Amino acid sequence: MFVGVDIGGMSIKAGVVDGSGKILSKASCECNGKLNESEIADRICDLATKVANDAGFDIRDAEGIGIGCPGSIYDEEGIVRYSCNLNLKNAPLAKDVKDRLGVEVKLGNDANCAALGETLFGAGKGCKNTVMITLGTGVGTGIVADGRLVTGNRSAGAEGGHIQLSVGGAKCGCDKRGHFEAYASATALMRMTAEAAKRHPESLLAKLAEGGISGKTAFEAARAGDRTAKAVVNRYLTYVGMGLVSLANIFYPEKIIIGGGISNEGDAVMRPLQKYVSENVYGAEYNPKIEVVAATLRNNAGIVGAAALFMTKREA
Amino acid sequence: MFVGVDIGGMSIKAGVVDGSGKILSKASCECNGKLNESEIADRICDLATKVANDAGFDIRDAEGIGIGCPGSIYDEEGIVRYSCNLNLKNAPLAKDVKDRLGVEVKLGNDANCAALGETLFGAGKGCKNTVMITLGTGVGTGIVADGRLVTGNRSAGAEGGHIQLSVGGAKCGCDKRGHFEAYASATALMRMTAEAAKRHPESLLAKLAEGGISGKTAFEAARAGDRTAKAVVNRYLTYVGMGLVSLANIFYPEKIIIGGGISNEGDAVMRPLQKYVSENVYGAEYNPKIEVVAATLRNNAGIVGAAALFMTKREA
Repeated sequence: MFVGVDIGGMSIKAGVVDGSGKILSKASCECNGKLNESEIADRICDLATKVANDAGFDIRDAEGIGIGCPGSIYDEEGIVRYSCNLNLKNAPLAKDVKDRLGVEVKLGNDANCAALGETLFGAGKGCKNTVMITLGTGVGTGIVADGRLVTGNRSAGAEGGHIQLSVGGAKCGCDKRGHFEAYASATALMRMTAEAAKRHPESLLAKLAEGGISGKTAFEAARAGDRTAKAVVNRYLTYVGMGLVSLANIFYPEKIIIGGGISNEGDAVMRPLQKYVSENVYGAEYNPKIEVVAATLRNNAGIVGAAALFMTKREA
Repeated sequence: MFVGVDIGGMSIKAGVVDGSGKILSKASCECNGKLNESEIADRICDLATKVANDAGFDIRDAEGIGIGCPGSIYDEEGIVRYSCNLNLKNAPLAKDVKDRLGVEVKLGNDANCAALGETLFGAGKGCKNTVMITLGTGVGTGIVADGRLVTGNRSAGAEGGHIQLSVGGAKCGCDKRGHFEAYASATALMRMTAEAAKRHPESLLAKLAEGGISGKTAFEAARAGDRTAKAVVNRYLTYVGMGLVSLANIFYPEKIIIGGGISNEGDAVMRPLQKYVSENVYGAEYNPKIEVVAATLRNNAGIVGAAALFMTKREA
């Protein structure tokens, strides 16, 4: 039995996960940017102990505890190098938890864990190669190639959100310009929505935008038939498609898995992306179809994926 | 002892390669687009037998024969799915050779083999993660992640030349628009050179271009101080840099290896690319430096890399 822990800026979630990816017990507690390394380790241990008890075993008998954490992570050393929303810097979190509980601990980046979870037990089940892209405030990518997470030297890779789409161009969350994230995030969609609403004050999009703009606004107006909104959605999904095609040409996965808030739009997102990928990926005419699908594990992806750090292939 | 075979449109080259990547004997023969599958297999077997004899052993005692072939290859099945310049379609070339000689045979895409050879025994020696890019008529990419070739489902991936840089844009060798290859190949540089020479008939670039344009023209004029040529080189290398940064953000390799004709320009290519990558890769300020280096195995990369198919990590 494995325990998966998903650290976020607002909460820490943990669960007992069996070898088939099923969650047997679950719990969560508060987290914030003021907690120090030791306090975070304590909370993780309390949660892990609790979920193990709830699932009927002693945490010391767990086969392993996997932890997914946002930020720059050194997987092999089990160190949080840096995390934007947490008070962790060069923090040996894996060791902290192992020392407290006496159980093997593995640490990974949260987006990578989610991709691993989705690949092994969610939308990518049965696949050896997947690309997961999370369309939210930013654009996260997690890549599984031949059954293994692609993380790069010191786990600094898998930053597909920072593919360069243009010289200059829109400003990215990382402050540079022209990156995929600056065109494909929900944030980018909201910017496009605001711009179009301003240019077309007569549109339904502009009317809906008056009540506040979210990542849903353009999709909602487009569903009601608004031309301006349809153009925004179309343009946004073309940008998303461009990044997906680039990633697909590199990895040629069996499936591209779409997660994040935007994926809640379902077919309105998946169908156009499927069409764009099928029409534009290199060699599509004689290679297997790459399916574009929505993530299925949702909020559980982090927990399941962290536990899955113990179930993926390792060094030959 | 291993034998590496490098199939090209004009010739087939083979060599005996030892465990340290050293070539102990070498031979080649003619190849052309009219030879059928059986004839190509015969020539491979003749060459392999000869290089083994020259190295002092019977080919039947070889540990394995690795074959690199251009085109779409199904690695696992040992099948040439399709190859542009060769008369091979759904050709089980690995089996053909194995049946004739009774030796284990592995087949791979030639660009991937070259990347593997450079990683294990050339410019990337000692690295676990490398991205090799070949700047020639087209743009080839070969990727090694955590010691393994990234090839994708049915080996259809690693087509980094078809990363999408723009909506619309210049036409790529694959007939689609805006791909990396359409901006970063030697062919693209020649196009930019011709355009600039036309716009600036007074330039040294224009004068040199009168004698015929190659991938060297702009570099030559730039070295002589020509402003027009410097601008062309600068623009070209910026495009190359963009693609490299995208690949680096995904793979975060220890080294990026530049091969192909353009790499012969040496520092005039490596220095600006190194600067661009270091300045633009995500997280460069707190992650290890990614070195941009020239390929070193040159014409031997194919042979060494094909043999290296037997020396890379495999399934855990």
